[in-house]
Amino acid sequence: MTTLPPGSTIGILGGGQLGRMLSVAAARLGYRCHIFEPGAAPAADVAAQLTQAPYEDSAALEAFAKSVDVVTFEFENVPAEALDRIEALRPLRPNRRALAVSQDRLTEKEFLSGLGLRTAPYANVESAADLAAAVQSLGCPAILKTRRLGYDGKGQVRLTDPAQVPDAWAAMKDAPAVLEGFVGFSMEISVIAARGLSGEVACYDPGQNVHEAGILRTTTVPAPIPAALRADAVLLAGRILNALDYVGVLGVELFVTQGGLLVNEIAPRVHNSGHWTQNGCTVDQFEQHIRAIAGWPLGDGSRHADVTMENLIGTDMTRVPDLAATPGIALHLYGKADVREGRKMGHVNRITSATA
Amino acid sequence: MTTLPPGSTIGILGGGQLGRMLSVAAARLGYRCHIFEPGAAPAADVAAQLTQAPYEDSAALEAFAKSVDVVTFEFENVPAEALDRIEALRPLRPNRRALAVSQDRLTEKEFLSGLGLRTAPYANVESAADLAAAVQSLGCPAILKTRRLGYDGKGQVRLTDPAQVPDAWAAMKDAPAVLEGFVGFSMEISVIAARGLSGEVACYDPGQNVHEAGILRTTTVPAPIPAALRADAVLLAGRILNALDYVGVLGVELFVTQGGLLVNEIAPRVHNSGHWTQNGCTVDQFEQHIRAIAGWPLGDGSRHADVTMENLIGTDMTRVPDLAATPGIALHLYGKADVREGRKMGHVNRITSATA
Repeated sequence: MTTLPPGSTIGILGGGQLGRMLSVAAARLGYRCHIFEPGAAPAADVAAQLTQAPYEDSAALEAFAKSVDVVTFEFENVPAEALDRIEALRPLRPNRRALAVSQDRLTEKEFLSGLGLRTAPYANVESAADLAAAVQSLGCPAILKTRRLGYDGKGQVRLTDPAQVPDAWAAMKDAPAVLEGFVGFSMEISVIAARGLSGEVACYDPGQNVHEAGILRTTTVPAPIPAALRADAVLLAGRILNALDYVGVLGVELFVTQGGLLVNEIAPRVHNSGHWTQNGCTVDQFEQHIRAIAGWPLGDGSRHADVTMENLIGTDMTRVPDLAATPGIALHLYGKADVREGRKMGHVNRITSATA
Repeated sequence: MTTLPPGSTIGILGGGQLGRMLSVAAARLGYRCHIFEPGAAPAADVAAQLTQAPYEDSAALEAFAKSVDVVTFEFENVPAEALDRIEALRPLRPNRRALAVSQDRLTEKEFLSGLGLRTAPYANVESAADLAAAVQSLGCPAILKTRRLGYDGKGQVRLTDPAQVPDAWAAMKDAPAVLEGFVGFSMEISVIAARGLSGEVACYDPGQNVHEAGILRTTTVPAPIPAALRADAVLLAGRILNALDYVGVLGVELFVTQGGLLVNEIAPRVHNSGHWTQNGCTVDQFEQHIRAIAGWPLGDGSRHADVTMENLIGTDMTRVPDLAATPGIALHLYGKADVREGRKMGHVNRITSATA
C-alpha cells in the first residue's frame, strides 16, 4: 500500500456538488484536484484545475489523466470508453467492477442476490411480452426502471394495473429494463461505508431517509431502528465492499421490512444521504473517500452529534436567509447559477444534539 | 444593509492558508473567490480565480477589483497605495481604520489606551536616545518592536540590560519602533470576535494560547479562566469592534494578569488562534468572516465541543500519518509545497469532549 504523496493531484470525473465537496476535503489533506466535467462545474470554484470537455473527447481525457495521480468520480454513469482511456494511464478508484455493478440495475440485483443479500423481487424486461409476464409474476403495484442511467426518479414508471403494460413499455423507449415488485417497508435507511486501500472497512451510523417526488428530502441520524438492525446494516455494507474489492466510499440504500433489511440500491461514491457527516463526524464522508483513494488510514466514522440533513431543492433557496439566522444550522450551498425545480441547490445540517 | 447576492465574487488580498480557508467558507455560502497574491498561493487550489502580481502592479490590482463585488484580506500589511486603488472601485471590509490601527504598534496602543483598555507599558522609539530613555523609564526586561510589519516574532529584540541599547537599536535598521515594558501574566488568551454589516457583534469562547519560539503552538478551548474574565474578554472585544466600525472577524490577544486583562495586540482578520472553531462550532471563524462582509446574519458563536488546536510547523509534517490514524483528530493541511523550519504547514483540531 502506498500513500499518495502530499501535493499530488486527484482527478475527479464530474463537477457537481459531490465533486465540489470532495475537492475541498482533498485540499484539507494537502492534495490538489483536477475536475473533468462536460457541463457546468460548480466544483471548479474550489478546485485547482478544470477540464470542460465531453467524455468522448479522448485527447482531453488523456491530457486530464496524465495531469493527475489517481482518478475517482462523483457520478457513476461515465461512459465505459472514457473509463478505458483513463484506466490505461492512471489508477481508477473505486474500480470498474463497482461501476459495472451499479450502472446496471439488473447486474446490481444479481450481484446482491449472489452475496445472499435480499433485494426487492425483480425481473429482467427486454420487451412488452417480458413486461407482461413479469407483471403477472410479481403483481401490482410494481416499478419499471431502465437498467441504466436511472437518477433521482428519472427513467421510472409505476404500474398499478396490468393494463398499463403497453404504455409503461413505450415509456422505456426500447431500453432494457427491470421490473421491481412491491415491497412493504417501514422506512428507508442508508449506510455510508468506506474501504481503504489496505482493505480496512469503516461505516457511519445508518441514517433514515425521507424522499419527496423521488428526491431525497431529509436524512436523520441516528435512524430510529434497533441496535441489531444497525449492526446488520453495517455488516451487510462491509460484505458488499469486500466482494467488490472496493476502495472509497459507497452508499447503500436499505429498506427496513418486517423480515429484516433489504438492499434497494448501491451507489459507488459519496452519497447525498451521507452529507450529515460534515457536521456530525470528525472525518466526513468526503474526507473518508479521499483518505481511502489516497491510501490513508480511514477515519473511524464515529458520530459526535445527532443531525438532520435537509436538501435545499429549487425554490427552497428562498429560505436561506431564515436558515442562516437560525442557531445550530450549518449551511452548505453549491454555488449553482440557476434555481430550477427539482434541482439540488444546497443542503443544511441541523444539529439536534451533541453527544460525547 | 444589503446582502451580497448568491454567485457574487469575493476578492481576497493574500493567498496563504487563511485565504484558503476563507475561500472554502465563501463557497459553502454560494460565493466565488478571486485571490490576489504576489507570491505562492495555496489558496488558489480552492478558489475560482487567482491573480498573481505584486501589490505595486496597479493594472492588475484594478482588474482584480473590477472582477469582484467586495474585497477583504487575510493579511494586514497590504501597502496603502494598493488599498487606495481598491477602495476607489469596491468596498473594502474590514475598513482602512482597522488596518491603520493594527499595522502600526504605536497607533494600536494609542487606540487601545484611548478606549480605556489596558496594554503593556510602552514608549515611542525613533532613535537610540529615545530607546535609552524608554529603557530607563520602563525598566528591563523589555521588548523592542518595529512599529510596522511585525509578524510571528520577526522584527523584535528582547532587552535584558540597558547596555544592549545600541545593538537593539541597530537591529531596527532605523525603523520607527516601540518599546514594550515587561508584563507579568499567567497566560495568554485570545478572543475571536465578529461584527456584522448591521453592527451586531458575536464572539467565540476565549481560548488559551501557548507559543513556542514566537509562533503559536496550541490554542485550547475553553481557556481555564473564571467566568468573569471570560465576560470581560468578550465585552472588551465588542468595544474594539464598535470603536472601529468594524465589519468582519477580528482576533484580540490578551494577557491574563493579576489586575485583569491586558490587550497584547489585535489582528483585523481571521486568526490562527480561531482555527479550533472549524471543529468546535457550527459556524467557524472563516464562515463568520464571510457572513459579516457579505451582509449575512452572524452565527451565534456557540461551541459544541472542547478542542485543542495544534499548529503543524515545519517538520511536524512527519507526524501526519500518526495523527491521521488517531480518532478524534481533524487534520487541516495547507497544501504548501516546501516544508521549511518555522513554516506553518497545517494544523490539527483535537476534539477532547462534545458538549450539548
